[in-house]
Amino acid sequence: MKVYTREIVLSTNKKFQLIDITYEVEKIVEDSGVKNGMVLVFAPHATAAIIANEHESGLMEDIITKIKELTEPGSSKWKHNLIDDNAHAHIGSALIGADRVFPVINGRLVRGTWQNIFLVEMDGPRSRRHVIVTVIGE
Amino acid sequence: MKVYTREIVLSTNKKFQLIDITYEVEKIVEDSGVKNGMVLVFAPHATAAIIANEHESGLMEDIITKIKELTEPGSSKWKHNLIDDNAHAHIGSALIGADRVFPVINGRLVRGTWQNIFLVEMDGPRSRRHVIVTVIGE
Amino acid sequence: MKVYTREIVLSTNKKFQLIDITYEVEKIVEDSGVKNGMVLVFAPHATAAIIANEHESGLMEDIITKIKELTEPGSSKWKHNLIDDNAHAHIGSALIGADRVFPVINGRLVRGTWQNIFLVEMDGPRSRRHVIVTVIGE
Repeated sequence: MKVYTREIVLSTNKKFQLIDITYEVEKIVEDSGVKNGMVLVFAPHATAAIIANEHESGLMEDIITKIKELTEPGSSKWKHNLIDDNAHAHIGSALIGADRVFPVINGRLVRGTWQNIFLVEMDGPRSRRHVIVTVIGE
Repeated sequence: MKVYTREIVLSTNKKFQLIDITYEVEKIVEDSGVKNGMVLVFAPHATAAIIANEHESGLMEDIITKIKELTEPGSSKWKHNLIDDNAHAHIGSALIGADRVFPVINGRLVRGTWQNIFLVEMDGPRSRRHVIVTVIGE
Repeated sequence: MKVYTREIVLSTNKKFQLIDITYEVEKIVEDSGVKNGMVLVFAPHATAAIIANEHESGLMEDIITKIKELTEPGSSKWKHNLIDDNAHAHIGSALIGADRVFPVINGRLVRGTWQNIFLVEMDGPRSRRHVIVTVIGE
């Protein structure tokens, strides 16, 4: 059995942004030497999330629009905004989740044709966002 | 250590539909020979999702009602609808997630009494939807 | 390879409540002896969820406020409420998810500074809620 972990470090330049990390995750799976198993893509952040979906610019805007509607940035109803003006990002991260898991078959990460992997920035810009990729299998 | 993967192939016959795959997933866990570990239930689709909840027809309708309210099928505000009229399904898949992970104990998938496993179709009907089930453990 | 599973049993005393289980999960990871791998935190309940986010009382209230808005407790539009008055909790559990996965590196669960782990009670109070923690790795 093998366990292989590597970190992706990236920066974001907008308050809301989807950063495509598919290539980096696939490279880590390849480098891991794991033939069959699973891979965890995890963001150690309470104001970001991980999702899988299509890399189409209109849709990427739609996803951000929906996250804003769902989480209401700047709303005076959020008590956390009295401390730090990012309650929306915390709520988005909690509900969407900062972890996604994919199968690994024959040395490759399995995903649908339209499933690219994204870090969802909801409280940017940030100079250092991390994604931890853990591959486990044989 | 064992890794065992098998695919469930199914068709859907409505635009929105919950397909119960609990039995199939449990059978794969049983066939895997894994005694203790975990099982990943993964849909390689950007317009579907995987959830765990109660198989009660009223509730299954409620879940679909809520997904429609949350993702607004056909809305002119979705930019992706200029390309393909299914932005709602992409947004639902991204936010809900196409992966769910369950523990395996003593050779059985562990789930609550009311936690059946469903593929959530949001852009049907489709003649071929896939669910990849990966069991890992000892 | 090691697989180590333990159960946390807890009670809730409100209808909606976030119960911080970070310490218990970290202790299980430590006790597992797994140095590198991943850990699954899973609630075998269709009316609860698992999330990771900041333990700040205002934010914890905000998350509950958002879950109520999203799932509409007591709404007459939910068909499941004719059977059992908790459709909202089922919908919340289905959409948010009852599973979260974290990396394990050098014998420790990896999480962000502001990522505490919570059971989300949406249909309490309950005398016995369970969380199953499965650590897998080497």
